[in-house]
Amino acid sequence: MNGIGPPLVTPFDEAGGVDYRRLRELVDWIEGRGVDFLVPCGSNSEAELMTAAERARVIETVAEEASVPVLAGTGNPGLRETLEATRAAADAGADAALVVTPFYYDHDQETLEAYYRELASESSLPIYLYSVPAYTGVRLEPDTVGRLASHPNLVGMKDSHASLPEFVRTKRRIAESTADVVSSAGEFDLMIGSGSVLAQALSAGAVGGVLALANLAPAATAEVFEAHQEDPERARELNEDLVELNTAITADYSVPGLKWAMRERGAPAGYPRAPHREPDAEARGQLRALLDEL
Amino acid sequence: MNGIGPPLVTPFDEAGGVDYRRLRELVDWIEGRGVDFLVPCGSNSEAELMTAAERARVIETVAEEASVPVLAGTGNPGLRETLEATRAAADAGADAALVVTPFYYDHDQETLEAYYRELASESSLPIYLYSVPAYTGVRLEPDTVGRLASHPNLVGMKDSHASLPEFVRTKRRIAESTADVVSSAGEFDLMIGSGSVLAQALSAGAVGGVLALANLAPAATAEVFEAHQEDPERARELNEDLVELNTAITADYSVPGLKWAMRERGAPAGYPRAPHREPDAEARGQLRALLDEL
Amino acid sequence: MNGIGPPLVTPFDEAGGVDYRRLRELVDWIEGRGVDFLVPCGSNSEAELMTAAERARVIETVAEEASVPVLAGTGNPGLRETLEATRAAADAGADAALVVTPFYYDHDQETLEAYYRELASESSLPIYLYSVPAYTGVRLEPDTVGRLASHPNLVGMKDSHASLPEFVRTKRRIAESTADVVSSAGEFDLMIGSGSVLAQALSAGAVGGVLALANLAPAATAEVFEAHQEDPERARELNEDLVELNTAITADYSVPGLKWAMRERGAPAGYPRAPHREPDAEARGQLRALLDEL
Amino acid sequence: MNGIGPPLVTPFDEAGGVDYRRLRELVDWIEGRGVDFLVPCGSNSEAELMTAAERARVIETVAEEASVPVLAGTGNPGLRETLEATRAAADAGADAALVVTPFYYDHDQETLEAYYRELASESSLPIYLYSVPAYTGVRLEPDTVGRLASHPNLVGMKDSHASLPEFVRTKRRIAESTADVVSSAGEFDLMIGSGSVLAQALSAGAVGGVLALANLAPAATAEVFEAHQEDPERARELNEDLVELNTAITADYSVPGLKWAMRERGAPAGYPRAPHREPDAEARGQLRALLDEL
Repeated sequence: MNGIGPPLVTPFDEAGGVDYRRLRELVDWIEGRGVDFLVPCGSNSEAELMTAAERARVIETVAEEASVPVLAGTGNPGLRETLEATRAAADAGADAALVVTPFYYDHDQETLEAYYRELASESSLPIYLYSVPAYTGVRLEPDTVGRLASHPNLVGMKDSHASLPEFVRTKRRIAESTADVVSSAGEFDLMIGSGSVLAQALSAGAVGGVLALANLAPAATAEVFEAHQEDPERARELNEDLVELNTAITADYSVPGLKWAMRERGAPAGYPRAPHREPDAEARGQLRALLDEL
Repeated sequence: MNGIGPPLVTPFDEAGGVDYRRLRELVDWIEGRGVDFLVPCGSNSEAELMTAAERARVIETVAEEASVPVLAGTGNPGLRETLEATRAAADAGADAALVVTPFYYDHDQETLEAYYRELASESSLPIYLYSVPAYTGVRLEPDTVGRLASHPNLVGMKDSHASLPEFVRTKRRIAESTADVVSSAGEFDLMIGSGSVLAQALSAGAVGGVLALANLAPAATAEVFEAHQEDPERARELNEDLVELNTAITADYSVPGLKWAMRERGAPAGYPRAPHREPDAEARGQLRALLDEL
Repeated sequence: MNGIGPPLVTPFDEAGGVDYRRLRELVDWIEGRGVDFLVPCGSNSEAELMTAAERARVIETVAEEASVPVLAGTGNPGLRETLEATRAAADAGADAALVVTPFYYDHDQETLEAYYRELASESSLPIYLYSVPAYTGVRLEPDTVGRLASHPNLVGMKDSHASLPEFVRTKRRIAESTADVVSSAGEFDLMIGSGSVLAQALSAGAVGGVLALANLAPAATAEVFEAHQEDPERARELNEDLVELNTAITADYSVPGLKWAMRERGAPAGYPRAPHREPDAEARGQLRALLDEL
Repeated sequence: MNGIGPPLVTPFDEAGGVDYRRLRELVDWIEGRGVDFLVPCGSNSEAELMTAAERARVIETVAEEASVPVLAGTGNPGLRETLEATRAAADAGADAALVVTPFYYDHDQETLEAYYRELASESSLPIYLYSVPAYTGVRLEPDTVGRLASHPNLVGMKDSHASLPEFVRTKRRIAESTADVVSSAGEFDLMIGSGSVLAQALSAGAVGGVLALANLAPAATAEVFEAHQEDPERARELNEDLVELNTAITADYSVPGLKWAMRERGAPAGYPRAPHREPDAEARGQLRALLDEL
């Protein structure tokens, strides 16, 4: 994968059911605005609030409707459920799996490394690592990623550490680790997970981004990516204009804020699922003001 | 529920499958050592590493084998899955459900309150709150618990905050909130979740404890509870002798350490499930030394 | 030292100057209510907002006015300034020095141990360790305290970790470490730093407490200490009634809240020093309500 | 100020005394390598381990020896000591003062704002804000900086938040706040405090950096700054090569590691002061390897 991939929100109806028809519309809405791949069942999808069966059907629906590659989220706290979800994603037509570090229980770096090695060896789908300390409380350290990057079925990473220096260090460890193998095995795709630093990460060697922001502003996000190829400083300027909005739909108001803002822009985003609740009046006011600047 | 309830570990075989036969043996092993109720599918059970079907069958197995009440863990990140798991626990013969605060996504106190109200209103099983910041990163604040305690189907709490002052404050809020209703609706059972402060919590009004330690040392844990009824200072002294061991099987070496130590004592605890791994030589040495002092 | 020692607030006038006359009145006000020793220049004194010369004069003033022993705070981020402050405290008439872990820069346990060893060896005053992670972000671990406890000039500790289990573990490490030496060198005085768990800490072997609460409610705090000698459960009950107030004057509203509440009770506490500011109306309302219950 | 300013380490002799002669040599050593201004008594100077008198003399020594502007660190936990230190810095010949957020006690944003306003109004020297959560546990939020930026005597900031998005948001708030006033009062100089993201911060509107790295590699750091004016992407590449080394002398081994590495490169950096200790063999090995790559 490379370029821009939105971690697709999952449209629920007001009663909380998955609205598969609207999900297809969402795929079309976003693809029509120029993204490069789609990521169903990532953190923004509220996957952790769905059953395994729902997740598989969401992935299947997206894979059927999409004309771009599909990177499906399949991570669970346990290895068995992750393997099972990854098999289901393969059956559902996904091209690769994005696997968040196992959460709930704490694990050290050695245990995380063993987990990904076993997963990658048993999975038919290529695996992308996913480290997002804001949700999980754990981070894949640069040394760990470097060691994992030489595994032939570990093919990339979504780095949501919100730290450019750590991104640079991770990139270097990967380069050292894969120096001998890239000619045969292909590149390890390091992608950024924060829309606020897309342009800087591209300059630092990211091949793309998996960005909540690409749900709400796919065209503007893709524009940053394209601008970077011609003029990195222009990409950076375009990106800066998106920082406040990105902060609002991630750190400040999270998925419910993102979905509300998407609906305001006419996207078929649907409603959040419990325990998530609709944003309150103050949040909506803040989001409204930021959308007006877009 | 009151008294001592072990959050039962789940025996897995070396290949990672649930060993239901050994689980029955474990129920007998622990019941024979004097506990008051059993808690399958709590945090120590590695429930988050099992499928929903496995969890239901674990609960059913325990409920069949047990001669004491069963408080079954049924919490998930999402309300729907929690409701479904709670229904399954009722069908499996559980007497009540222990529901951890929804994890992975962050929620504020207002959202947590709404979540528990909706859950309690729709559940046929009585619900116990469960707040364990070490795993979830969130805590149910005393004011929140106080407001929830008046709900007729929210009947207790496992407090794993590791803070006696917060326990005392929670107890006070509950007392204020339920002053009018206890005569008709019965008590709200506040229980402690840390074996290191069982005696102190009992002095502060806890009706019991759901304690990892009760897996490993059920008789010694029950002895603290019984001693407290006669002589609180003696209970406290007995409890102090368990603090190092309790720290080792929770904070230091967690579930894999607990299971290894149980096996050393002859308990049919089985093996941990991946990503969990067996404790290393240093951890085993530390645990061995602490077991020798028991 | 043993028994109850208030970490005396420093009365400032409204312009921010130290009000030494009022400080003498405060010593009398508190001593008349039954405390066992006094602690000028602790965290509640706003010592970090004073010059070295002011701190020395505050200690001197308290030592002159007091008829009980004086344990003077002398910790600074650097060893030289701490040594100098400890010398000044000795000259000013203090009986011992309470030395907070060096703050601002991060130090590992080995460095902290070396720091206290060098300090104790060069100081003419006996030294008490002081660990207060809420202010410093660092904690003296039980093993570190155990190793330090055998030094003949390290004679005690104020533990403000807010964790009973850690207190118990620290106590055990000290007992192991000093088993050979106590007959000649005397006891190592482990004291608790949180008024919310005084009774429990006494049951766990504390010889006393250095408690912000003893500024505001010296008689009630001393009553817990005395009750403990006869009836630990009664002490615990009395202590519970102080938990909300103690939380308010420490975690919630800190030193400015403490001083405002003291003034409300007629104590010559004076005003806080900048950057501290008077508590706002909401804080005052909360404190007022808690004082009414006292 | 703009361009590159090293937060000068303070050379101590092996007994821990300030080595003022070597400090003069250090000023010459660094100035000869192309920096734009000098920052004595910043965090890397171990100012918190010095007396007020030593700090004043360090500033005076640097101001006498320097041919570039001097931005002197003068922040203390209390307003009075900060005002006094700022006056002393003015007397010692400093051009402006860099004032870290008041530490030890916690303060909310409103209190921090009041603190800086009062300081700026009473100070004859222009004031730079300094926010460094790694040391203080507190951050100046973008909104707070925005409000403060319109004060005529608050003229800049060192942002050590290690977050590009927050830097961008701070920059925007400043621009909104000073839109009316810049023509008369001049610019508000926003500088970055992390050498790992200098190039990115320059692209985002930083006018320079106050960087520990500029102590160790002044020429390489200045080269990033100069390259940025011609070719931002080239600056970014040069900067990337410094990320590992910068991580080592800040996050990993801090001031003692920085000083050891400087001595290895022939800089008159002197020794750290207690509680700081010389880096151990492993740290020296890591630093040695990174210096070899420089």
